Amino acid sequence: MTATRFFSDNAATVHPAVMEAMVAANRVDTAYDGDALSRSLDAAFSGLFETDCEAVWIPTGTAANSIILAHFARPWQGILCHEEAHIEVDECGAPTFYSGGAKLMTLPGGGAKIDAEALTARLAGIRKDVHQVQPAAISITNATEYGLSWRADEIGAIGEIARAEGLKLHMDGARFANAVAFLGCAPADVTWRAGVDALSFGFTKNGAMMAEAILFFGGSGGAGVRELRKRGGHLLSKGRFVAAQIRAMLADDLWLANARAANAGAAALALACGDRLLHPVEANELFVRLAAEEAARLRGAGFDFYDWGEGAARLVVSWDQDADAVAPLAAAIAAL
Amino acid sequence: MTATRFFSDNAATVHPAVMEAMVAANRVDTAYDGDALSRSLDAAFSGLFETDCEAVWIPTGTAANSIILAHFARPWQGILCHEEAHIEVDECGAPTFYSGGAKLMTLPGGGAKIDAEALTARLAGIRKDVHQVQPAAISITNATEYGLSWRADEIGAIGEIARAEGLKLHMDGARFANAVAFLGCAPADVTWRAGVDALSFGFTKNGAMMAEAILFFGGSGGAGVRELRKRGGHLLSKGRFVAAQIRAMLADDLWLANARAANAGAAALALACGDRLLHPVEANELFVRLAAEEAARLRGAGFDFYDWGEGAARLVVSWDQDADAVAPLAAAIAAL
Amino acid sequence: MTATRFFSDNAATVHPAVMEAMVAANRVDTAYDGDALSRSLDAAFSGLFETDCEAVWIPTGTAANSIILAHFARPWQGILCHEEAHIEVDECGAPTFYSGGAKLMTLPGGGAKIDAEALTARLAGIRKDVHQVQPAAISITNATEYGLSWRADEIGAIGEIARAEGLKLHMDGARFANAVAFLGCAPADVTWRAGVDALSFGFTKNGAMMAEAILFFGGSGGAGVRELRKRGGHLLSKGRFVAAQIRAMLADDLWLANARAANAGAAALALACGDRLLHPVEANELFVRLAAEEAARLRGAGFDFYDWGEGAARLVVSWDQDADAVAPLAAAIAAL
Amino acid sequence: MTATRFFSDNAATVHPAVMEAMVAANRVDTAYDGDALSRSLDAAFSGLFETDCEAVWIPTGTAANSIILAHFARPWQGILCHEEAHIEVDECGAPTFYSGGAKLMTLPGGGAKIDAEALTARLAGIRKDVHQVQPAAISITNATEYGLSWRADEIGAIGEIARAEGLKLHMDGARFANAVAFLGCAPADVTWRAGVDALSFGFTKNGAMMAEAILFFGGSGGAGVRELRKRGGHLLSKGRFVAAQIRAMLADDLWLANARAANAGAAALALACGDRLLHPVEANELFVRLAAEEAARLRGAGFDFYDWGEGAARLVVSWDQDADAVAPLAAAIAAL
Repeated sequence: MTATRFFSDNAATVHPAVMEAMVAANRVDTAYDGDALSRSLDAAFSGLFETDCEAVWIPTGTAANSIILAHFARPWQGILCHEEAHIEVDECGAPTFYSGGAKLMTLPGGGAKIDAEALTARLAGIRKDVHQVQPAAISITNATEYGLSWRADEIGAIGEIARAEGLKLHMDGARFANAVAFLGCAPADVTWRAGVDALSFGFTKNGAMMAEAILFFGGSGGAGVRELRKRGGHLLSKGRFVAAQIRAMLADDLWLANARAANAGAAALALACGDRLLHPVEANELFVRLAAEEAARLRGAGFDFYDWGEGAARLVVSWDQDADAVAPLAAAIAAL
Repeated sequence: MTATRFFSDNAATVHPAVMEAMVAANRVDTAYDGDALSRSLDAAFSGLFETDCEAVWIPTGTAANSIILAHFARPWQGILCHEEAHIEVDECGAPTFYSGGAKLMTLPGGGAKIDAEALTARLAGIRKDVHQVQPAAISITNATEYGLSWRADEIGAIGEIARAEGLKLHMDGARFANAVAFLGCAPADVTWRAGVDALSFGFTKNGAMMAEAILFFGGSGGAGVRELRKRGGHLLSKGRFVAAQIRAMLADDLWLANARAANAGAAALALACGDRLLHPVEANELFVRLAAEEAARLRGAGFDFYDWGEGAARLVVSWDQDADAVAPLAAAIAAL
Repeated sequence: MTATRFFSDNAATVHPAVMEAMVAANRVDTAYDGDALSRSLDAAFSGLFETDCEAVWIPTGTAANSIILAHFARPWQGILCHEEAHIEVDECGAPTFYSGGAKLMTLPGGGAKIDAEALTARLAGIRKDVHQVQPAAISITNATEYGLSWRADEIGAIGEIARAEGLKLHMDGARFANAVAFLGCAPADVTWRAGVDALSFGFTKNGAMMAEAILFFGGSGGAGVRELRKRGGHLLSKGRFVAAQIRAMLADDLWLANARAANAGAAALALACGDRLLHPVEANELFVRLAAEEAARLRGAGFDFYDWGEGAARLVVSWDQDADAVAPLAAAIAAL
Repeated sequence: MTATRFFSDNAATVHPAVMEAMVAANRVDTAYDGDALSRSLDAAFSGLFETDCEAVWIPTGTAANSIILAHFARPWQGILCHEEAHIEVDECGAPTFYSGGAKLMTLPGGGAKIDAEALTARLAGIRKDVHQVQPAAISITNATEYGLSWRADEIGAIGEIARAEGLKLHMDGARFANAVAFLGCAPADVTWRAGVDALSFGFTKNGAMMAEAILFFGGSGGAGVRELRKRGGHLLSKGRFVAAQIRAMLADDLWLANARAANAGAAALALACGDRLLHPVEANELFVRLAAEEAARLRGAGFDFYDWGEGAARLVVSWDQDADAVAPLAAAIAAL
């Protein structure tokens, strides 16, 4: 089945090591997040990111993004993001819900990267009065919604604007692992070193079952964060099973290995797609020109994927799909 | 360890059958709640409850309660509940958060059961104008926060008031299984047949990992419910792992067997407690008179439990604690 | 002073007849909106609009817009509006606040009129699932933020789309009087007859002190509206003083006379502006090309107005500025 | 008519000096709160209260209370108040709406004064974890909902608890003038000197039309307050008319004169009520034992007032009701 499934990494299997860690966690411990696994996360992520960070487990990426943004923006403030950002397009208004009303203020930019000039212009255009919503944070997605990986200097440029304007910088890292794997950089390089204040570090798409980490750098977390999690109904009583997933993903850099595998599959597929590609392939997603009739032919051959507007499609390679797994689709596309 | 742990069923282990079901669900299926397991829940619960019902999985009880109540009450309306209800005391304001501001309107009553007369008096005392918050729903907990099980006729009395006043009736069933096991009734008898419109059916405390069911009877669900779940960040992409837990709990009435086991342990412990008992033991919780010095002695012997104000303690027996498991504590109490 | 003030009709004087009506209302009557003046509004507006309508006084336009939109959209739904709409740009997020989180979904269009084709395309592009915000209402402004008056057939085209999609249609009529005066139509023609479900009918800019009317047509109001007003803190205890302003504005069509006066002033000014005009002048606002140095010259001569980005300015004529009052500015512009 | 109206000071007339000030303000000035009158309020109140304070006009007391409390409490926090406080009972949930969900946590106490011991006990009973709502503020009403005036030392006792627990102290002063008039103290004595951080200073019941002042002492206001006002739709464009009312009320201590007049009327009435009084009369309200049949007799004689549960009634004397005005009612009660 992995040979035919390209609609999303959302529905992929759980990595055996994660499953084993969950089974191993099946013993009594303190409820909520008082258990040993939960309490180990700060140190584990501080090591990985080479700086003190505050780590809070959370079952979904929507909740991770929303809680961070609600922590950064008061109800009457705004959050600058790309007009195709997941938080704007695909979360049913969750960040506005969690923040008590903060406004998403959208910006253009190729490949779903916020354009720094457009950002500067937008900021300059906001009157500093109570009639207009004043932004409190910027949110970027890495890898982006079009599978592009932000380079450290690109993030740094946004980070500088953020710092100059007194805005917090959030990174939606639902596919952060794929970006880091593609860039071959240290996690720190594309986060706090580039000015990122908080990261939603996604594991679910990358081999976990329901596990993401909210990470705060430079002391940007603190009071209110855990209240937002509890109040949202995300403080699982048996929280150790979420922490266990994360620890399994961090062990021996499984997160990186899984992301590399998915990226490799995507790269192999990219070769077959040639000039069908609408964006460079810098993670595990491909956006390709595909006529309706071609799409029908691929689906007829058993391949699953999303249409992306008219005449285009999105193909996503998951951590459990290696070069062999993508070969049939690669061949089918080449034969179109 | 099960012999010494009585602080909460919240932190109990996951039943092996649930764990196996999760492992078995580790194959690709449609994301979110489009998978076969998720889609099977309506039928499964409709069978168990002997009526058509709408079933929505959700990872936590706080989210289950909050989504149902937010569905029933507009932001400017109220929710009547007991002054010691979990939704009032222990959910960090989650129902108010999800509903956009609905007010919890509290009522007295022995053993954390709403007193029907106090309810009637309260309703009569509300002026029907825009200055006072008008209630839209009543929420009761079964088994209650003091481990009492509502009888069908007691619920029916509240249900009649609700119907007469045009209010929805919600049941927080975090320990619904324990109540049904104690009463020996059909699930329908203490829910829709008694006027309950929606139930938060808890599985997590009773052997699941993170799985509860939101159940709507008589068509009381519908538009808005799934938006509330998504917006709250609870629509797990790999939702089949939550549905799998629920199916495992329903299979061969595991939910009932687990609840009976916990109740039996509690009953055995109750014998040892004698006139220390502050409330009858009708589920898996005991509230007992216990002097500070006695509590210290028990803790010294390795037993874990919560203090319940001054001179009292709460003991909770979990599904994995049978008569043997509670025997040491029973003996220790008897020896005080 | 009226000869030099063109920055906003927001700050204009109160018409003497309105002030007299307020003085006349200074006797005891029932509190809140139980007084005779408040209770007379339904009938007064039903007469003016030639249909039964529900009328609710409210002190500000921001509150009028927000309460109507909160009544139409649930917290997880959306409101389609122009990207330069007042509700999007200048109300500090009030509609999102009042609705408990509804999302403003913006659309392009010349002169701040929503483009019907863009609207249709936007609606077609929304996936009907819980991940994407589903719109519940459309809001248009008449006269628009660029001083254009929507024609009945233009509104009808939007109204048809709204009806076909099950959306409510709201009109922000902060300058509704100016639009009706310009069009010479019946108020009904550009509201309910064209598919408008609710109107924020503004009086404050047009000679009142703090008085707007929320009007619901076709039974679109009802339960919840007055709770939103009370909860927002807008149910003045001496509400008769707001109702009195509205009655004074309706008496002898003062609202129309005042709007005609302002429009006439704007038209006279438009003649002097010639090809400086960036938009046709169809109400009481002018948007004109004006170099920074020219703007400085006019300000030096004592005229007040807003810059409108670089090289442009906004001039607003108020009800108390007749042809004589605008003559000095007209002359000054002609002389540039 | 003033001789027969005792149902509320809410519906009283507007003092002529206030009306004259509004007429005098009918000239063009800067919109919103940029006008000279609005800008004069900080200084005016700083003088009256003998300390620097930040003053923000607002049309209603509900909005005043809600904005202050929303400024002090984050959405997941709580506000301690008396169980019969106006904010709990009569504002349709407005403080929860404005704060984005903050919980009102109610306390008992005679005459609607929070009992300091009950407050201490309640605070001690709150577990310091994320499951329980943590309070951020205390709100008291002066004069209370039963017409009692808090003494400086009573407020100081609450203020000390607040300071020790890190809570802000808010005073709902809808009838603050009546309390100060009764106590004969300096306004500072029963506010900031006793630990009050913010005051809703009401003028509407005391002779204004729609005007209250939000006052922050000791720098407790600042960022966010004006956004809350704008977002709530309370930033009137012609705000000078609200500021003008307040200035008129402050001029020559009209606020004090009016309050004294109302209090004097209430005191005269109290003499006639004798042992019918349920509470001491320390402001302009009386709560009296009155059998249904007696109430009917008074109403038959033309007197208006509210029933206060069974066998009791509330009588309110307004600023425009002097000893002569209350004499007929006093006689009627004496004759019962």
